[in-house]
Amino acid sequence: MSSKRIGRQSVKFENPPVITASACVGGKLEGEGPLASHFDYISDDAYFGQKSWEDAESQMLKQTFELALKKNRITQDDLDYLYAGDLLNQCVSSAFALKESGAPFFGLFGACSTSSEALSLAAMSIDGGYARSACALTSSHFCTAERQFRTPLAYGGTMTPTAQRTVTAAGAFILEAEGTGPKITHITTGKIVDAGVTDAANMGAAMAPAAVETLCTHFSETGRDPGYYDFIVTGDLAQVGFDLLCSLTADCGYDIAPRASDCGLLIFDREKQNVKAGGSGCGCSASVLAGYLLEKMKSGEINKLLFAPTGALMSPTTSQQGKSVLGICHAVAIENEV
Amino acid sequence: MSSKRIGRQSVKFENPPVITASACVGGKLEGEGPLASHFDYISDDAYFGQKSWEDAESQMLKQTFELALKKNRITQDDLDYLYAGDLLNQCVSSAFALKESGAPFFGLFGACSTSSEALSLAAMSIDGGYARSACALTSSHFCTAERQFRTPLAYGGTMTPTAQRTVTAAGAFILEAEGTGPKITHITTGKIVDAGVTDAANMGAAMAPAAVETLCTHFSETGRDPGYYDFIVTGDLAQVGFDLLCSLTADCGYDIAPRASDCGLLIFDREKQNVKAGGSGCGCSASVLAGYLLEKMKSGEINKLLFAPTGALMSPTTSQQGKSVLGICHAVAIENEV
Repeated sequence: MSSKRIGRQSVKFENPPVITASACVGGKLEGEGPLASHFDYISDDAYFGQKSWEDAESQMLKQTFELALKKNRITQDDLDYLYAGDLLNQCVSSAFALKESGAPFFGLFGACSTSSEALSLAAMSIDGGYARSACALTSSHFCTAERQFRTPLAYGGTMTPTAQRTVTAAGAFILEAEGTGPKITHITTGKIVDAGVTDAANMGAAMAPAAVETLCTHFSETGRDPGYYDFIVTGDLAQVGFDLLCSLTADCGYDIAPRASDCGLLIFDREKQNVKAGGSGCGCSASVLAGYLLEKMKSGEINKLLFAPTGALMSPTTSQQGKSVLGICHAVAIENEV
Repeated sequence: MSSKRIGRQSVKFENPPVITASACVGGKLEGEGPLASHFDYISDDAYFGQKSWEDAESQMLKQTFELALKKNRITQDDLDYLYAGDLLNQCVSSAFALKESGAPFFGLFGACSTSSEALSLAAMSIDGGYARSACALTSSHFCTAERQFRTPLAYGGTMTPTAQRTVTAAGAFILEAEGTGPKITHITTGKIVDAGVTDAANMGAAMAPAAVETLCTHFSETGRDPGYYDFIVTGDLAQVGFDLLCSLTADCGYDIAPRASDCGLLIFDREKQNVKAGGSGCGCSASVLAGYLLEKMKSGEINKLLFAPTGALMSPTTSQQGKSVLGICHAVAIENEV
């Protein structure tokens, strides 16, 4: 085993890539939530000036990409790789958002874990010497997701208490071999976990066991206790999944609750915003990290962050066929001082 | 720029990963085609013993994965990473096929270019020292693709002359840092190309410009002429796209025609099998490489292969909205002696 590979699922980087810039854009509801001030831009127009929801999501992601580049004062011609994906069928939001980027493109599908999957692969390509810079980015949009995964918006479907509201947001991260910013020091890549949950309106419960598996493996393989981190954050387990996570990790001997939260809980005010269990979607963890969390790292309030978004690997077809909602979780350790 | 990165889109590996095993499984029509004898297994049952087409595709991919492992005498516990994706919504074929693998999983979406996207990322993770072994795998199934992208099978839709038949097949590749077999020496990662083609029944024409871009960039950045390779093969341009490719690369000063073909032309007999322009689907290039082409490399008939599958980045929704079919092409150089 190479010295970079420190366990079955974990890698330690020799030259940890730097997150030199990030950007996030959100929708109206996100702009009314507790993290409103941490977005670079909030659009009150759900269409983002476009004529379809799908074009709106692409436009939002494109805008986020351009904002991240602008902050970094680099152009898309400088980017060696793009790692991107989204929730829409055939990942069209990211493809159409980036079709004019002119950069080598790797399309990903990790459902709501796409942000950390993209960060993991981008970090490997930089630490490995294949790229000087790369961008990891992803998005989700309530209106595209709702009609694709559930019901047409005009149908006015109601949500069950365990259901989650798809976040309308995008997040983009510029990673570089050198520069100023927090560094990605470790990744722990998830296995697919089938917890046997068939209720697509309870994705938190379906994904929580995957988060437990990845987090406990991360602690074990890195030799770090939860206390090593200032903050441990999952992607979109929301209330049902997050409660399960805390309970199940405690059963494994890791008490994460005092220093943990979930991006699906942070982004909305559950009491006031009628989002049931909380937020979900690729853009949830991506935007919370790109704005709120990286700002806290910049200010030194958080110096060691374990970022562990989860994804639900399913489709309306598999749900209609009675299959489980499969879960996966990829963890990324982001640290100020290494 | 690191010495591994030899151009805007190309990487040269310092310790080229070895393809130590591969396997392919196909359906009935593929078993009646010219490459029938090169499959490890042909199923006359389109359901592969399952109750839905989706389960059939997962079962086919799982079987291919197990066959590749068996040939290599390694177990899934030895695999450091899986890189997999498919054409179905939310890539469920690969997720369900691999849910019991227990290996760290990266889900990809590259449409029909998924085989070379997976090989590229797997090769980087091995050459970079993050993995000793990895598996790259993908699948497509005529019956799942037809009803998802076009019409229900029972509708009996007819194909236009430019349309392509989705191949029912899967291919899997075991890559290792050491071992016996052909090596991946270079990768050239594609950009998204919008050729403005809106006819989803003419994907060859939509994808050909992406193949031109990637191949010409590969020749230019590696300093290799087409004549360096014994064989240059695209993924599923089929007749319309392949004719365009030969013509457009010639316009760029590269005459590939004497030593080039397309997996979508190789896998079927267009005259006898009523497949219109030829074959398509993730499983097309994956199975042709895993069987036919790697056998020719084993026998020494081909020593230097440029493998360049193309993908159409689109969905039925984007087509219905009048958007272009975007194209992408990732090239992988596979060589016997390095």
